[in-house]
Amino acid sequence: MDFASDNGSGASEKILQALITANSGAAAAYGADVQTRRAEDLLCQFFERDVHAFLVTTGTAANALALAAIAPPWGAIFSHEDAHIIEDECGAPEMFTAGAKLVGIGGKDGKLRPDHVAATLARYPQGVVKQTQPAALSISQATECGTVYTCPEIAALSDLAHRQAMRVHMDGARFCNALVGLGCTAAEMSWKAGIDVLSFGTTKNGTLACEAVVFFDSAAAADFAFRRKRAGQTVSKGRFLGAQMAAYIENNHCFDLARHANSCAARLASQLSALPHVSLAWPTQINEVFAIWPRATDAALKAIGARYHEWSARCLAEPFPTGEDKVLVRLVTSFATQEEEIDRLVAIVRKSH
Amino acid sequence: MDFASDNGSGASEKILQALITANSGAAAAYGADVQTRRAEDLLCQFFERDVHAFLVTTGTAANALALAAIAPPWGAIFSHEDAHIIEDECGAPEMFTAGAKLVGIGGKDGKLRPDHVAATLARYPQGVVKQTQPAALSISQATECGTVYTCPEIAALSDLAHRQAMRVHMDGARFCNALVGLGCTAAEMSWKAGIDVLSFGTTKNGTLACEAVVFFDSAAAADFAFRRKRAGQTVSKGRFLGAQMAAYIENNHCFDLARHANSCAARLASQLSALPHVSLAWPTQINEVFAIWPRATDAALKAIGARYHEWSARCLAEPFPTGEDKVLVRLVTSFATQEEEIDRLVAIVRKSH
Amino acid sequence: MDFASDNGSGASEKILQALITANSGAAAAYGADVQTRRAEDLLCQFFERDVHAFLVTTGTAANALALAAIAPPWGAIFSHEDAHIIEDECGAPEMFTAGAKLVGIGGKDGKLRPDHVAATLARYPQGVVKQTQPAALSISQATECGTVYTCPEIAALSDLAHRQAMRVHMDGARFCNALVGLGCTAAEMSWKAGIDVLSFGTTKNGTLACEAVVFFDSAAAADFAFRRKRAGQTVSKGRFLGAQMAAYIENNHCFDLARHANSCAARLASQLSALPHVSLAWPTQINEVFAIWPRATDAALKAIGARYHEWSARCLAEPFPTGEDKVLVRLVTSFATQEEEIDRLVAIVRKSH
Amino acid sequence: MDFASDNGSGASEKILQALITANSGAAAAYGADVQTRRAEDLLCQFFERDVHAFLVTTGTAANALALAAIAPPWGAIFSHEDAHIIEDECGAPEMFTAGAKLVGIGGKDGKLRPDHVAATLARYPQGVVKQTQPAALSISQATECGTVYTCPEIAALSDLAHRQAMRVHMDGARFCNALVGLGCTAAEMSWKAGIDVLSFGTTKNGTLACEAVVFFDSAAAADFAFRRKRAGQTVSKGRFLGAQMAAYIENNHCFDLARHANSCAARLASQLSALPHVSLAWPTQINEVFAIWPRATDAALKAIGARYHEWSARCLAEPFPTGEDKVLVRLVTSFATQEEEIDRLVAIVRKSH
Repeated sequence: MDFASDNGSGASEKILQALITANSGAAAAYGADVQTRRAEDLLCQFFERDVHAFLVTTGTAANALALAAIAPPWGAIFSHEDAHIIEDECGAPEMFTAGAKLVGIGGKDGKLRPDHVAATLARYPQGVVKQTQPAALSISQATECGTVYTCPEIAALSDLAHRQAMRVHMDGARFCNALVGLGCTAAEMSWKAGIDVLSFGTTKNGTLACEAVVFFDSAAAADFAFRRKRAGQTVSKGRFLGAQMAAYIENNHCFDLARHANSCAARLASQLSALPHVSLAWPTQINEVFAIWPRATDAALKAIGARYHEWSARCLAEPFPTGEDKVLVRLVTSFATQEEEIDRLVAIVRKSH
Repeated sequence: MDFASDNGSGASEKILQALITANSGAAAAYGADVQTRRAEDLLCQFFERDVHAFLVTTGTAANALALAAIAPPWGAIFSHEDAHIIEDECGAPEMFTAGAKLVGIGGKDGKLRPDHVAATLARYPQGVVKQTQPAALSISQATECGTVYTCPEIAALSDLAHRQAMRVHMDGARFCNALVGLGCTAAEMSWKAGIDVLSFGTTKNGTLACEAVVFFDSAAAADFAFRRKRAGQTVSKGRFLGAQMAAYIENNHCFDLARHANSCAARLASQLSALPHVSLAWPTQINEVFAIWPRATDAALKAIGARYHEWSARCLAEPFPTGEDKVLVRLVTSFATQEEEIDRLVAIVRKSH
Repeated sequence: MDFASDNGSGASEKILQALITANSGAAAAYGADVQTRRAEDLLCQFFERDVHAFLVTTGTAANALALAAIAPPWGAIFSHEDAHIIEDECGAPEMFTAGAKLVGIGGKDGKLRPDHVAATLARYPQGVVKQTQPAALSISQATECGTVYTCPEIAALSDLAHRQAMRVHMDGARFCNALVGLGCTAAEMSWKAGIDVLSFGTTKNGTLACEAVVFFDSAAAADFAFRRKRAGQTVSKGRFLGAQMAAYIENNHCFDLARHANSCAARLASQLSALPHVSLAWPTQINEVFAIWPRATDAALKAIGARYHEWSARCLAEPFPTGEDKVLVRLVTSFATQEEEIDRLVAIVRKSH
Repeated sequence: MDFASDNGSGASEKILQALITANSGAAAAYGADVQTRRAEDLLCQFFERDVHAFLVTTGTAANALALAAIAPPWGAIFSHEDAHIIEDECGAPEMFTAGAKLVGIGGKDGKLRPDHVAATLARYPQGVVKQTQPAALSISQATECGTVYTCPEIAALSDLAHRQAMRVHMDGARFCNALVGLGCTAAEMSWKAGIDVLSFGTTKNGTLACEAVVFFDSAAAADFAFRRKRAGQTVSKGRFLGAQMAAYIENNHCFDLARHANSCAARLASQLSALPHVSLAWPTQINEVFAIWPRATDAALKAIGARYHEWSARCLAEPFPTGEDKVLVRLVTSFATQEEEIDRLVAIVRKSH
């Protein structure tokens, strides 16, 4: 019973097989190989347009490099105050941008709202020399609360940013989970909604270690090869990244993986929310369930070795009764989660009351 | 016939198999997994002492992070002028150190000599505020010319550096090739010879993408977990790095791989040097052969699709007759090189005259 | 009628005279001169202990350099959300620290409260690799709202920080104004209250351009000469900085200057607060008055060329009625302010209703 | 007898007087004052065209900021190997550019030669991802050896750089000394010879602390206000910088100052070179004399308190007999040097033999 993170699962069979296949023979190094070319082509198909895509090994690198490509050192980057780029990357965006400022903005359910963003931007006028300059808006899709923006919501935020000459980044660590949750296309959820550059995550959804920085704004991609190299993210045996990404996209494998993870979370959410002593902190829209349950429940689960994280976020709609009694936890499902794990966990939660 | 780089080979069977094995089941993320722990233990055995080891995905990241751990932003880092950290990493060391200065020092056969190093250090006195401060010496083992330092040579350089309160880094991108070439132990070639921190490369010798930053000076490792995270090098599914490294070391697999690569290079060097129209630029001490041959030879090989790089280095013992007639090339063998490839290449070289 | 900033005044007569005196003859460059040595001695007297002091030309440089000396690139620096280091230095602290994170904390009257600080620190546990690490607390004395911390208040904040192994910085851009406001000694308001490093500002209080970074924690000062040089802040004709600082401190000149500025502000505040259509946003404790008055008043003053800044700050105790009717303004007095300017301004404000 | 540096002199009478005059009354802060506007206008006249000029307090800041404006973090900046930006700024250019690489090129008399530059550039092809990218050429006028480039020599270097899409910086710490030495105009020696951005030094030639970054390429200046602010170089009482610069240029004051300094050096060089035991290392073209004389001479001068620096440079035309016998020294004259100082020094040198 491991609900600690979708990072806790390995790679899908198909992706592992693709890696094995890619292993035979010699290949050009540093991304000049057949598999990487194939991945780039598939990414263009996936997004239904030409894109400039660069493969890297971690989501932190993808985010930090993407932001560095669109924000100067004196730039301000706006995102939700609970965003991964602010809270969970040990300052990587600051390092890669050479010191840009990340400005957190509050918002219910982990989501930015245009009025909040506008109010914050009002404090960062263009051209005032003493202040960092509005450069980028970063949207997490899905959010740190497991919620998703609708495509019109993304478009409204992008429009707001673009009107102020900012560029828009999407942290898509769980891009396909969000996509499957919304039932829209990758194009609709990204560039058609105004995204300029995307951190397209695949690791959490079934690859070993493969993320892509996808530019829809080709001007921003101009120097990216140097940025990536200099960041130690230009993998020498690039074929292995290419093979993972190609297998991930081909035949909609990524959607199959995400659909399974999401439906597991839906099952878990549905069963938990039926219990009188459990409530959900946010709606379950991807593969994450945020439950508030008694500490006794927590103890019972820990006792049998269940794994998941206690959580905290500033975006809770209302303060929940912490202290002795209750605890907020995050339960993450993945492509590899099995129904019986869910049922076992729910059974213990049910009994724990 | 691919002699472009040892990066052109995939992974060894054993390492690929270890990856497959590591894939089953759930595992803790970010390096808190069983495989990473196993790799750390094996690295301690390999180096015959306690070490602090951190796995990363590229040699550039390993080098740049290692140097950042031992040189402040106002530090000067000394290395051979042809070193990878100066010539081939697009400024990664400057980025990761926040602007330290890399100072190149000349030297025959790609090797630093204590007298040259001392002469350069004399221009960087400690405490002169207008100058960057001597912080680190970086030794490439093997060198960019495919040569190796003997253990006493390393010790002499380390001593020189330590006497000036500097720390010593080894860029061991081809560490095992050098080790096999010398016939000494990992301990002898590293900490026993005064190395404080090592970039322990494995990718070129048979893994998919796995390098370790190995600290023998534990004080320098204190904050390294933050540096790695912030550099986007803390891989989420860390088990896959751990599995590669463990398989690489176990049962001396790394030595078997390196021995094969080196012996292929020796065979190639031996055959080539017997030809009247070919000379070798430097002795063949690892898995690289640097040949000087006629442009007609070059054309004949290119015509049949042979792959290798034309080379340039400032450390040539004497200027060779370039221009119309001759060309300096680098031929790299790997764990996967086959004898018949060598023989085919030599046959064409022989006929090309 | 210029109340825009104390930066709008020139230098005091005594300081200008000291500059002229310092001009004659030859002097050693880069701070090895007699005047700088004299300034260093006087700073030790001023703070009643040995200090390591480094003169620089701007407050931004002083703050950013001081913070870089106590926070690593992966460090988190906590301050009030309205602090100059967050809002007014265009990211200088991020640049000089190579990417540390500045974390703003709310608080009434521009002041940090220990409970708020503790609550924020609780979200930054030591050793959690994905997060920046608590490194420094920065206290603005006086604050951006013209208020001052009492010495016990400073000590309470310092204690809190020190208990978590953080160091404490004071942004003393208006240090002497605060000191005169409190009626305590420089020692009491700095190191005796736990400050480790101080940006000791003098420019706003009567020098041309001279700030000192004063270390009470000598370990943190170890490499500061290199930091300053590399930041372009080691002035070649250092005698001119030394002469300004020496004249500033000698014979309590700095206190005379600050007393005048503060008493002008007190007079202004007293007269304004007596008017029915004017209220003060915060108590007047140094040389700044923050008034809320009708837009008609604003228009009347602008019409006769009065200079001051409209203000905004997140630390207002309660939202004030903005919009059509009211405006929050900052009025700054200086050593050079004349009583008749104050009376003229008040007269117009009185009539404007 | 102080020949240590032109930094050892104070400010000229006229400049000090301008500072005193500028001190009266209130002025807008941060460079929005009358004096700064006047300085900007005068700089346009001085250079006979529109320029974007930014005043800063040190030459190191001017150089590092100028280079950051024209070289990205992955850029390579080429200069003479003895250049101030490489040897004397403690890594400021690396800090301000966020890690660009400075590449030193040898050359007799401290001067870059087009063929050497071209040979170095050949090793830095555009677009090779593993290498830093050619971004800027920096020319020191005058050089570290007290020599000057003729305008055609500058133009030849600029052309070479521009043909490779690089921009050209001039470190003009002693710009007016060079100008007077050549007898050409500021326009001819800068933008007419292809300079894109100039560090226009005035401190060494008679101001207290004032340098300008002058952009002839206005595109490169676009974001410079943010760079300067963030570097702590936007002085609050900007009027004092403006007043210095205006007084420096007005009525050709700068030329009068430089002419005096240069003629003192010429006198010194002429007298020294007539002595049999003294030779000059390089021709005296500005206000610096580089003499090679016996150690006994050195001792005699030190004994009476003469101040100057022993020197070392890699650009000596031929190795000179060091060791026991001879020493290379730098003697710098300034606007304040008096003839009798020269004569006294020469008298001792003459007798010392």
